[in-house]
Amino acid sequence: MAKNFRLYIPEPLFPEKVITLTEAQTHYLKNVVKITRQDRISCFDGQNGEFAAELLNISKKDISLRIAKQLRPLTICPDIWLLFAPLKKDKTDFVIEKATELGCRKIIPVITEHTNTTNIKIERYTAQSIEAAEQCRRTDLPEIIPPQPLSTLLAGWDKTRTLYYMDETLNSPDFYTVLKGNSNKQAAILIGPEGGFSSEELSRLQNAPYAKGATLGPRILRAETAVAAALSCWQLIQGDWSN
Amino acid sequence: MAKNFRLYIPEPLFPEKVITLTEAQTHYLKNVVKITRQDRISCFDGQNGEFAAELLNISKKDISLRIAKQLRPLTICPDIWLLFAPLKKDKTDFVIEKATELGCRKIIPVITEHTNTTNIKIERYTAQSIEAAEQCRRTDLPEIIPPQPLSTLLAGWDKTRTLYYMDETLNSPDFYTVLKGNSNKQAAILIGPEGGFSSEELSRLQNAPYAKGATLGPRILRAETAVAAALSCWQLIQGDWSN
Repeated sequence: MAKNFRLYIPEPLFPEKVITLTEAQTHYLKNVVKITRQDRISCFDGQNGEFAAELLNISKKDISLRIAKQLRPLTICPDIWLLFAPLKKDKTDFVIEKATELGCRKIIPVITEHTNTTNIKIERYTAQSIEAAEQCRRTDLPEIIPPQPLSTLLAGWDKTRTLYYMDETLNSPDFYTVLKGNSNKQAAILIGPEGGFSSEELSRLQNAPYAKGATLGPRILRAETAVAAALSCWQLIQGDWSN
Repeated sequence: MAKNFRLYIPEPLFPEKVITLTEAQTHYLKNVVKITRQDRISCFDGQNGEFAAELLNISKKDISLRIAKQLRPLTICPDIWLLFAPLKKDKTDFVIEKATELGCRKIIPVITEHTNTTNIKIERYTAQSIEAAEQCRRTDLPEIIPPQPLSTLLAGWDKTRTLYYMDETLNSPDFYTVLKGNSNKQAAILIGPEGGFSSEELSRLQNAPYAKGATLGPRILRAETAVAAALSCWQLIQGDWSN
């Protein structure tokens, strides 16, 4: 049965262009999924949409493709950012993957007082997000920003962007009420670390006019669950899940 | 620093009752988290709420506790069920964990035409859900039902319960519109397997008056992402995340 493969190509694509895949892409297509000439390939570059591609040559070392017609135009995801305190490796992988699938435009690891991971590998995050974008049929990629301390990020915050922070103390209104009361389509979601925000951080957030605290129900969600939940809720009410 | 531990005890609890922990619980407390007499322990039984507990005795083989005062009454999660097509082991673990955290009352593995996993271990699912319930501070446990073919489940469906199925064909309305148009608090969410529903299954669902198809945005979500997303959306609009 013919299969479909979707690849991100980090250079501008246009019909008739010939591209040579990377070693990793070649390995994946040749050895992991064992591509055949019956399979369909499409490519996207994050700038010009998605294109059909023809298998030109499979050599021992690499695969070359010829770009054919455009299949879909570029669609940029809604203007929602994720700010998250890095977690253990597996959980951070999960966060990057889910944030990409759930249509996040920008992903920023933030260092908070209770963040206990310093193992932040932007290259790894980027690889995870590319894989997720290929799988979920995005034509853009989320932008992944190097980690920043929360205090720095708040000090330079563009006040026209609403910052929703998920408040585990249950002292904030529910997220539905908060989302219905705010129609700003430029937004960010901040999820704290496993240990929660410090009281200083919370008081700083509470006093920032652009920041809105919200609760996600009565149970205590793991940080990575809160990421998926909050992004889903935002997309449902204010993003591209509803018309 | 004193820590808090929360344990599920599968027998009715009441003040002054003495309980002996299982081998696994004992191993966890003694060897994994290295419990001390300064730490706080609470126990819940899924029936009578949550109780403080005192460390009575730590022997080589087991730990005994004395149940003290009730800390919280029993709270039953909203009447939302999850029906999901089992996935690979790790992904199914994830589904059970997230469904528990996201306040699912009942979890039913369903066998659809494109389900390619037959490795369904209810004991493992139960263990996963207990761990997640302990962590997220639920006082009830989700009920986990043995796997059933989708056709059997639909044939015996209680028609007063709305069944939301997530439709990857993008031919259904968005989930927000669907949720706003249906106020039935007895509901279930059905997530198909990686390969989607068969056309027969889809047509059967489309023709069932209790079933409502919905889409979760323009991107293709992995099955386990769709579980977390759909449950979050339901809790936001109709569950216990909003007042």
